[in-house]
Amino acid sequence: MGERQKAVVLLSGGLDSATVLAMALRDGYEVFALSFSYGQRHAWELAAAKQIAARAGGPGVAGVPGVKEHRIVAIDLRAFGGSALTGDWAVPKGRPLAEIAEGIPVTYVPARNTIFLSYALAWAEVLAAGDIFLGVNALDYSGYPDCRPEYIAAFEKLANLATKAAVLGERRIRIHTPLIALSKAEIIRAGLALGVDYGLTSSCYDPSPAGEACGACDACLLRRKGFREAGVADPTLYKAHANTVP
Amino acid sequence: MGERQKAVVLLSGGLDSATVLAMALRDGYEVFALSFSYGQRHAWELAAAKQIAARAGGPGVAGVPGVKEHRIVAIDLRAFGGSALTGDWAVPKGRPLAEIAEGIPVTYVPARNTIFLSYALAWAEVLAAGDIFLGVNALDYSGYPDCRPEYIAAFEKLANLATKAAVLGERRIRIHTPLIALSKAEIIRAGLALGVDYGLTSSCYDPSPAGEACGACDACLLRRKGFREAGVADPTLYKAHANTVP
Repeated sequence: MGERQKAVVLLSGGLDSATVLAMALRDGYEVFALSFSYGQRHAWELAAAKQIAARAGGPGVAGVPGVKEHRIVAIDLRAFGGSALTGDWAVPKGRPLAEIAEGIPVTYVPARNTIFLSYALAWAEVLAAGDIFLGVNALDYSGYPDCRPEYIAAFEKLANLATKAAVLGERRIRIHTPLIALSKAEIIRAGLALGVDYGLTSSCYDPSPAGEACGACDACLLRRKGFREAGVADPTLYKAHANTVP
Repeated sequence: MGERQKAVVLLSGGLDSATVLAMALRDGYEVFALSFSYGQRHAWELAAAKQIAARAGGPGVAGVPGVKEHRIVAIDLRAFGGSALTGDWAVPKGRPLAEIAEGIPVTYVPARNTIFLSYALAWAEVLAAGDIFLGVNALDYSGYPDCRPEYIAAFEKLANLATKAAVLGERRIRIHTPLIALSKAEIIRAGLALGVDYGLTSSCYDPSPAGEACGACDACLLRRKGFREAGVADPTLYKAHANTVP
């Protein structure tokens, strides 16, 4: 191929976005990774994002170049409150998986993906990038309104009305969500095939100060189920007691 | 009417948003005003927003209550650059009005309205507000892609897919843009009828440290033309030499 197309990849430091990053690199994009510091309880997640961005592609995966640039933008989602993830309420623990898949959890952050995608759009416009990658998943997180395919389609439509390049007819914006219809086990298998080191990723909503995952929040439970179903050992360091949680 | 409906009003400190604020108050909404500190050159604008929010409605306008709450959220649009308004380039001066109305100016901030509306949506969701007001204008700023009616309609559609309340069928989100088809002169006349003190508003993209408007940037030129056409004295304090600009 000729000159590589630029893409902005939203990178949270979790399992899903690390997989999406590997997919964007595999597909030949010149990748600009974007993370947010948004007053999340789990700041450990950002440390994970840095490591993932630094080690994606490159020497670890033959022939795949690394991330071109990684930016962390500070935004203040705490200004409005309204979520357990920004510290307003307690993170629920030990919920049955069937319950996690239904309803909208207290860890939902109001309009978070809309804000994240808006920033990605701003950077894409400055970079003259036409592609934005986001690791949303509609199966495990059916309760999040902004993880659904119809939401993503609406944002893509908006993006193509919002930007100078679109108005001038220079470039269409595409929002890529390669995980949207995959199970957690399928995501893990796809990522392992691309050399993703899941030991670097952080999923827990409520890790210990040392970064150990709690093993019992919704995100930990979904992650553990995914590794179980993929038939692969989970490299996550869980708190000692967490392994007694089914 | 019974309990007042809550509305989030985006308030920049400029002439347009001050007018929209007065309209939302007139229409009986309980108003939550939202401003952003985004690395704009013209930080003086934020001081104006504070004064406008503090003095809108209330004793000045009989029977109209004031703003319920005003929040200023710090966001970092400088992280990506790409606009004269965030300090990357020089603000153009003395452009012909016909040129201002066409093309996309260097003062355009990539994805700015998308980011602003996303934050307004987050606050609206936390407040359980269904209405968001934005002072965009498609006539004077036809060059800004995110000031057009089709862009606003796309954001409204997105908002109704993005939020918990919409998914649960509890509440629709409406994006109000009462100025979108008005000329600057019409906006000024409407605002004066509602008691807006335009002496408090700031339009200039490049004011002096003391807050005097340059009189020659696109925003000043459009403002001056508006007051001229409305047949009303412009209370703005311009730099001495500015008055020689037609």
